[in-house]
Amino acid sequence: MGTADGSGGGSARGPLYPQLSLVALAFTPGATAPPPRRAARAAPSNMAALAEGEGEVGPNGSQEGLRSLHLAAVMPDLPFLPFCAFLGSLGLGCVAFVSEWCQHWHGGFAWDGSARMFNWHPVLMVTGMVVLYGAAALVYRLPPTWRGPKLPWKMLHSTLALTAFVLAVLGLVAVFNFHNASGTPNMYSLHSWLGLGTILLFSCQWVAGFSAFLLPYAPIWLRTLYKPIHIFFGSTILMLSMASCVSGINEKLFFSLKNGTASVPYKLLPPEAVFANILGLLIILFGVLVLYALAKPSWKRPEADSLDTHQPLLGAEH
Amino acid sequence: MGTADGSGGGSARGPLYPQLSLVALAFTPGATAPPPRRAARAAPSNMAALAEGEGEVGPNGSQEGLRSLHLAAVMPDLPFLPFCAFLGSLGLGCVAFVSEWCQHWHGGFAWDGSARMFNWHPVLMVTGMVVLYGAAALVYRLPPTWRGPKLPWKMLHSTLALTAFVLAVLGLVAVFNFHNASGTPNMYSLHSWLGLGTILLFSCQWVAGFSAFLLPYAPIWLRTLYKPIHIFFGSTILMLSMASCVSGINEKLFFSLKNGTASVPYKLLPPEAVFANILGLLIILFGVLVLYALAKPSWKRPEADSLDTHQPLLGAEH
Repeated sequence: MGTADGSGGGSARGPLYPQLSLVALAFTPGATAPPPRRAARAAPSNMAALAEGEGEVGPNGSQEGLRSLHLAAVMPDLPFLPFCAFLGSLGLGCVAFVSEWCQHWHGGFAWDGSARMFNWHPVLMVTGMVVLYGAAALVYRLPPTWRGPKLPWKMLHSTLALTAFVLAVLGLVAVFNFHNASGTPNMYSLHSWLGLGTILLFSCQWVAGFSAFLLPYAPIWLRTLYKPIHIFFGSTILMLSMASCVSGINEKLFFSLKNGTASVPYKLLPPEAVFANILGLLIILFGVLVLYALAKPSWKRPEADSLDTHQPLLGAEH
Repeated sequence: MGTADGSGGGSARGPLYPQLSLVALAFTPGATAPPPRRAARAAPSNMAALAEGEGEVGPNGSQEGLRSLHLAAVMPDLPFLPFCAFLGSLGLGCVAFVSEWCQHWHGGFAWDGSARMFNWHPVLMVTGMVVLYGAAALVYRLPPTWRGPKLPWKMLHSTLALTAFVLAVLGLVAVFNFHNASGTPNMYSLHSWLGLGTILLFSCQWVAGFSAFLLPYAPIWLRTLYKPIHIFFGSTILMLSMASCVSGINEKLFFSLKNGTASVPYKLLPPEAVFANILGLLIILFGVLVLYALAKPSWKRPEADSLDTHQPLLGAEH
């Protein structure tokens, strides 16, 4: 959050230290004129939280308000790295759950056009479009990315996103091949429309991000204009992925636990239904926590101090 | 965005005027020391967009960078009110689509435990949890709310949200009554788990928001701490509503256009399937645009100038 820096105290600011809450700077005497470099970092966090006028001291800046706000200033902020470790475990849990669902209840995996080929579809989509995508989105929230050259982290962000995209395309191949082999039409359900739309949007996002931030041709003003769009669509695509996953799991359970053919139909909640429903909720929880981490002002990368802020992949700094 | 104010020019800033883009303040000479009141408004917009170091002029502040950024400064910003009018039409379109789906393909509406009672479920959920909820979320983005007493707008926000909640509860009653009358179990599908979870979260959000911001008991520090949480869950609940709607429409289409019973099954994309799939995409589009409007810094309410910033419903200002 940059509170310690912004208030001019210059005390330690590490990701593992409990951070002061976001009201600390704005309502601490002497905080109104922070040092120039870190002020820009601290200001958005504090002011953004207050932007809608709920937390101000009031037009006259009452002492009572200040006292109350000092109480809030000692509240610890959530540290990023333990949160990130939890998120990583949750992501692995999602992959484990979706794999176990397909392995235990649907006969495992193959690449032969059979139902076992279909099983790659949920596994690859959850792994690519949710877990790896979430990891790619959070690269710049890692404190080590805040120091030194930015280019390696841009490469990591881009590579993780590209890997997520490749997995998603393989996930599409798996379901299309299965449909084609079994004579089922493609692209009729709302799940398929939304899912394919999400992946197309993701492909545009990746190409535009690569062109703007890694290739040397985009002028700075274009990058500056495009960046908030890239960030907004980053969160939007994850949200669409979550909606696609939920609708896909729901649809698959109605297929596989059909009334009249399944030994225990979906509506009687057999163990598979409970297991896959929980998978859906875990995916939602993972996605919401990623969106939370992306939105939290104190976890955002401060303005760059590094020399290669504008260093693209294939050109000189400009 | 507050650009005109923040740059010290004091020129007109109305919602219908094209706004200068978010880079205008940060890179305009004389913009480094904005007037104190509006500075806090302008700063988050500009700095938030630059927070990850993609748009700075560079460590040495090159003139080339400044020239490029001045080009960007003349790009018009999207005005809120026309966007809002489009969003309103889109919301009405969603309500019209879901009503027409139930009226034209599913026999219309009744409140008698029949399938015609079920039809209220999608209509009430889309109207309440998406359209009215979106309207409630956007109240503070209306420029008239930025001036004068805040209490009436708080009441409007709260009343719209409560109305949305009541419609959602009626939507639940509709589906539970239909299930009970037809001997179908409740709460087995992932759609139902997610949907009920979303409404429970919404109820907590409403009660917490009412208690913190309208009742006179919450101290300012608690409001300040809770506000970003309220804002985050505001967007999250809308996102969960969208996922619930998509999975619900998908599920309903598999029920009503079942292989073997429907004259044209879902997989052959009869007109109903196309119509309801488009409804799903319209809901997603509406929700994404609401989230965009909520996230856009230049459309956020500036810090309050009004005297009743902290005036609750049942108590004196404090």
